[in-house]
Amino acid sequence: MARLNWGMIGGGEGSQIGPAHRIGAGLDGHFTLAAGAFDVDPAKGVEFAGTLGVAEDRAYGDWRAMLEGETARDDRVDLVTVATPNATHYEITKAFLENGFNVLCEKPMTMTVAEAEDIVATARKSGRICAVNYGYSGYPMVRHMRAMVAGGELGRVRLIKAEFAHGFHANAADADNPRIRWRYDPQQIGPSAQFADCGIHALHMASFVSGQEAEELSADFVSCIASRTLEDDAMVSFRMSGGAVLRLWTSSVAVGRMHGLTLQVFGEKGGLSWEQEHPNQLYWTPVDGRTQIIERGAPDLSAAAQRASRVTIGHAEGMPLAFANIYADLAEVIMAEKESRSPDPAATHYPTALDGLRSMAAISAAVESANKSGNWTDARPPSFRG
Amino acid sequence: MARLNWGMIGGGEGSQIGPAHRIGAGLDGHFTLAAGAFDVDPAKGVEFAGTLGVAEDRAYGDWRAMLEGETARDDRVDLVTVATPNATHYEITKAFLENGFNVLCEKPMTMTVAEAEDIVATARKSGRICAVNYGYSGYPMVRHMRAMVAGGELGRVRLIKAEFAHGFHANAADADNPRIRWRYDPQQIGPSAQFADCGIHALHMASFVSGQEAEELSADFVSCIASRTLEDDAMVSFRMSGGAVLRLWTSSVAVGRMHGLTLQVFGEKGGLSWEQEHPNQLYWTPVDGRTQIIERGAPDLSAAAQRASRVTIGHAEGMPLAFANIYADLAEVIMAEKESRSPDPAATHYPTALDGLRSMAAISAAVESANKSGNWTDARPPSFRG
Amino acid sequence: MARLNWGMIGGGEGSQIGPAHRIGAGLDGHFTLAAGAFDVDPAKGVEFAGTLGVAEDRAYGDWRAMLEGETARDDRVDLVTVATPNATHYEITKAFLENGFNVLCEKPMTMTVAEAEDIVATARKSGRICAVNYGYSGYPMVRHMRAMVAGGELGRVRLIKAEFAHGFHANAADADNPRIRWRYDPQQIGPSAQFADCGIHALHMASFVSGQEAEELSADFVSCIASRTLEDDAMVSFRMSGGAVLRLWTSSVAVGRMHGLTLQVFGEKGGLSWEQEHPNQLYWTPVDGRTQIIERGAPDLSAAAQRASRVTIGHAEGMPLAFANIYADLAEVIMAEKESRSPDPAATHYPTALDGLRSMAAISAAVESANKSGNWTDARPPSFRG
Amino acid sequence: MARLNWGMIGGGEGSQIGPAHRIGAGLDGHFTLAAGAFDVDPAKGVEFAGTLGVAEDRAYGDWRAMLEGETARDDRVDLVTVATPNATHYEITKAFLENGFNVLCEKPMTMTVAEAEDIVATARKSGRICAVNYGYSGYPMVRHMRAMVAGGELGRVRLIKAEFAHGFHANAADADNPRIRWRYDPQQIGPSAQFADCGIHALHMASFVSGQEAEELSADFVSCIASRTLEDDAMVSFRMSGGAVLRLWTSSVAVGRMHGLTLQVFGEKGGLSWEQEHPNQLYWTPVDGRTQIIERGAPDLSAAAQRASRVTIGHAEGMPLAFANIYADLAEVIMAEKESRSPDPAATHYPTALDGLRSMAAISAAVESANKSGNWTDARPPSFRG
Repeated sequence: MARLNWGMIGGGEGSQIGPAHRIGAGLDGHFTLAAGAFDVDPAKGVEFAGTLGVAEDRAYGDWRAMLEGETARDDRVDLVTVATPNATHYEITKAFLENGFNVLCEKPMTMTVAEAEDIVATARKSGRICAVNYGYSGYPMVRHMRAMVAGGELGRVRLIKAEFAHGFHANAADADNPRIRWRYDPQQIGPSAQFADCGIHALHMASFVSGQEAEELSADFVSCIASRTLEDDAMVSFRMSGGAVLRLWTSSVAVGRMHGLTLQVFGEKGGLSWEQEHPNQLYWTPVDGRTQIIERGAPDLSAAAQRASRVTIGHAEGMPLAFANIYADLAEVIMAEKESRSPDPAATHYPTALDGLRSMAAISAAVESANKSGNWTDARPPSFRG
Repeated sequence: MARLNWGMIGGGEGSQIGPAHRIGAGLDGHFTLAAGAFDVDPAKGVEFAGTLGVAEDRAYGDWRAMLEGETARDDRVDLVTVATPNATHYEITKAFLENGFNVLCEKPMTMTVAEAEDIVATARKSGRICAVNYGYSGYPMVRHMRAMVAGGELGRVRLIKAEFAHGFHANAADADNPRIRWRYDPQQIGPSAQFADCGIHALHMASFVSGQEAEELSADFVSCIASRTLEDDAMVSFRMSGGAVLRLWTSSVAVGRMHGLTLQVFGEKGGLSWEQEHPNQLYWTPVDGRTQIIERGAPDLSAAAQRASRVTIGHAEGMPLAFANIYADLAEVIMAEKESRSPDPAATHYPTALDGLRSMAAISAAVESANKSGNWTDARPPSFRG
Repeated sequence: MARLNWGMIGGGEGSQIGPAHRIGAGLDGHFTLAAGAFDVDPAKGVEFAGTLGVAEDRAYGDWRAMLEGETARDDRVDLVTVATPNATHYEITKAFLENGFNVLCEKPMTMTVAEAEDIVATARKSGRICAVNYGYSGYPMVRHMRAMVAGGELGRVRLIKAEFAHGFHANAADADNPRIRWRYDPQQIGPSAQFADCGIHALHMASFVSGQEAEELSADFVSCIASRTLEDDAMVSFRMSGGAVLRLWTSSVAVGRMHGLTLQVFGEKGGLSWEQEHPNQLYWTPVDGRTQIIERGAPDLSAAAQRASRVTIGHAEGMPLAFANIYADLAEVIMAEKESRSPDPAATHYPTALDGLRSMAAISAAVESANKSGNWTDARPPSFRG
Repeated sequence: MARLNWGMIGGGEGSQIGPAHRIGAGLDGHFTLAAGAFDVDPAKGVEFAGTLGVAEDRAYGDWRAMLEGETARDDRVDLVTVATPNATHYEITKAFLENGFNVLCEKPMTMTVAEAEDIVATARKSGRICAVNYGYSGYPMVRHMRAMVAGGELGRVRLIKAEFAHGFHANAADADNPRIRWRYDPQQIGPSAQFADCGIHALHMASFVSGQEAEELSADFVSCIASRTLEDDAMVSFRMSGGAVLRLWTSSVAVGRMHGLTLQVFGEKGGLSWEQEHPNQLYWTPVDGRTQIIERGAPDLSAAAQRASRVTIGHAEGMPLAFANIYADLAEVIMAEKESRSPDPAATHYPTALDGLRSMAAISAAVESANKSGNWTDARPPSFRG
């Protein structure tokens, strides 16, 4: 496949997410890193661009310069990744979409529901891709779960259990360490901490796999460490658009859990169980039958799972390859447009601005419910309400 | 240790719980089955008693005859187990307590909170033992968890996660089978099905291990199979007496889960994780440390866990031995009284009428909360409210 | 079922195996402990018998007195368990068989192959039961494996992998502790330590499940702790009677392994995997298919597994119940004879003197092979050789 | 880091190993694919080179043309990967080394021990890198095991257990399928099949982690499917240079095992256990202590493990990233030479021609031993014998 040009905003020296994107985009050779504005400090960003092999004239001091520079070029980047601080995602994503660029935005896509509605509308008007980085949905076995549900193997999904729990913020002695504290500061992070940071990954996974969206929710937020204004543990129950119930738990004080993202989906005909820390196995139990272990790489997997696999059965694949699958999908869809053909249907399931919007609406509703003694609250974006 | 005399009401031919009690009581040789009224059909009960080696004059036709007969004897039974249908537990337990017998009552102890308050008061007045059979608390590693919490190894417990989920009622085609249907019929079972049946085991475990009692709760009850009046899936969040939050999930439509009773306890200094299906291992993670696997039978376990273990490390022990531990505790406490000595302190943690009362109060509160959009509801027994 | 009379030799105060036998024999109520000679010190044995409820006239000072006393009684014990020091098994077992008693002998049945041949011949002549306590074969899922193989579900068994490894003798500083040292002293234990102690359990399991007996073997014995005369680690490869290869590893210096008895059986049509530490699950993989988890207590298990199960699916059963299954089998077979009927065929798979003989032959062959650079050596008992 | 030029021989269209190398080499951006001779069909190779972005003048028709072309250039490739059919490895690797290129050769490095000795000598004389692709040694937790052993945390290593078992050649009906059959054909593959294909990975891992080399071995080879000339199952015991015993099992008929590469290392002070299918966790048990789970990404890991990790704790990393670690090491060592500095010591543990030679010697010895009733056989390369 011919290479596409790729640009990056943010993700400079010392960033954690930057290298992850570069591995993800570079892994299959679809994208060449052609341009970037990597740092709030223009000089540092330009210097860093050099170390990555970006040509001098495409090493920009800031995102506005990059927008101007790239817009003017014939070989403008085919995709821009926005990996800047959260509060800037909205403005940058919107500007690039409006100028005809495809965008992959880090989560959270925006800081408010209204901004998220605006991004969805902007993306729709532009006809461009606006993807949002819910990278866990790139795992092959997650895609297989989705295919099984869509293919009717579970019957109607009745119940979903999703968790994203870790224990890395459990040390009270460390809670005022600035490295941790900002994550629970409403000034910096908005009205929700743990649910907005981790919970929405679990929510996205539940929707992605079940094909059902959140309609109503009841939330219980708790700060297990008293000095925190925002929640470090949350339990949210949902009613989903297809009638399923979703039980979602997220915590940052669950000592002993690593990045405990797990998903269980229970339908009329059987149940599925998957966990992110051992992502190459999927457990499937038909009603009244035996649990079966479905292995990544097995010959009878769905097309979606096959497309997302790279190595043979029995060899572990991990998060960076899941991440790369999002990029591989975008490459396919962008190339298909260039080549005036339909993309591989298995490549069209990457998360989009709509997912970003739904997350923002769910966060807003969960905060409201938690403040009102767990009252059931409309979890849909305003534009989706009757 | 000399043998104690034991009597049984219910648990006759074809009963599932009857053999479990006989294994539990007989396993260590503390109890001799000396008397019984095993069946609603007096003749069948008397005949069955014979097959169990009960002497003719102590094979009773019904519990009233047994109460009368045993009360009149010098060698009256030292303990009576009540394993009759739920609706009769209250009357029988009360009658035996009032006549000075020690009782082990199957769960649920009563059908209402008021009855449960009455049993607690009756037991207190009688000075007799009224134990209730939350048998999972007999597992050695559950007792070790309790000892770790009590010994301060976790610091203050902040958060508890308890689950009891199975999938054996998930087959909609089988839902109207009488074998299943009665479990969701409010006429037969009271106002709660899955929470009352399985959820309260999880609640008892959480209280047993943490030393904290339920104070308030918010519940969400769902019938995943539409024909059911009562819930087959429930999520309940609690505020506990020591400040902990408890997240409790129970389900009977979670296909792929067997008897998925799991407990995770997260404190200031570390977290514990245990699951009933693999009960001989306990996972302990100190804050900022590595997860350690604590094995049943290890030489450094607490006295409570040592007392509850019978075979060497690396050999599985299961549910029947956990159950036998409840009986072993009762034997020790009864013998100690006979011998006018203090019982082994490690033997005094068997569940009592108070636990039965607290369960009934929690069921009542959960039903009320679920009916009121999940509103937070007082979960304490009336006698414990300010 | 009416009760049988049971007697015990050895297993007195402080013994580890004694309580295990009493739990196993007593669990289902088939056997009443009616007689015993529990200790080398006659007075201590008689006193201990009293604490167990044995009548005075059947509390014997030594096994010879017991043999004489019981032989003279009409209500003589229906089964004698021999749980004395290893060197005495042969003499006691033989004497009781010759006098018409059924015997359950602890392993090893004898100290030499010749003695074992003699026990087999004696048992045959007497027409009495001579069982040997390979208790792990009592696990329900082990019996299910055997039933699957016997029923042809695996096709021809090609390859078996059996392990019994622990790490409790790995501490060099503790190696000269008498509690450990005697286990590696040829004067006390014979020519093999770890293979004779643990390895033969694994060998018995392999034969029990596959229905194939050891024909030839090649052994490698190692003393990882230099001060030991006998092996603490052994690898033995076998050729089995049905053409299968058995790879057997046993070790007492494998730190981190508990009682790691595992069995994998690979046939033409699929493979099985089981481990003693989590005995309620069996993993079954059809060739070119998905691994399935077979749960103890599932309704579709073999009759042999059903017979050996006591509690419902999802509840752990452990080693003491496996042990009790051996006793339950013996009770059924003894009762059937008393009642002049055929026993339940599922009860006839307990290990016998033949298994004890085959173990002794394998130990002898393994020692010989290990001494001759691993040369392939006939592993059959002399009486089974061409 | 500035980019290095990389060339590839073999690994063309349809190859499985080709994409794995390109992902591995490309992942961190150290290497640019600058030249290649990708196919035995020159035209196809040149065309394929174009799709990979290789410049026309460096898309070669065969390896000889590439050797000539690259030797003539100032910007010659810094590393050549040899991923051609096994029988050609020796000739190509030797030619490139002699002309001053660094080489990464796929395994097996050669077809005979003599050729392997020659490669080692050639590499030494040339002063160039000759790496061999034992890619599993790139896993972070494998490197951590090595660091723990080297740092003395286990004390002297006494015993190693290594397995590489799968079941993908177990279907007898498929055994004559050419896709499978060639793997057991001595004409194509040499004198060993399963041991040479998978077993030597396990052997390399054992040596890599323990720091001990094979000195003597005793082998048992079996063809479980009778039509096979070569072994599909092998058990080999070793005596290692530091006194440890290695038990190595490899099989291709172990139905239910995926790519079951596992390693257990038992030392005086504790034991380690790791499995390739869940490579992010390492189990460590100190003698007389509790098993601990060491997680990839934990802050207290060794420098070698840290260097080999890319994503945060709790996120799975898999085989492609392990593979990339070998390339990252080579990049560091090559760059260090260019920059006249010492390489990061943690980057110097990639497998070399010496490992390739030791593997060939072990294969040769195992075949000899298996043919001689398992006799103990010198496993060292001729040049390492007294």
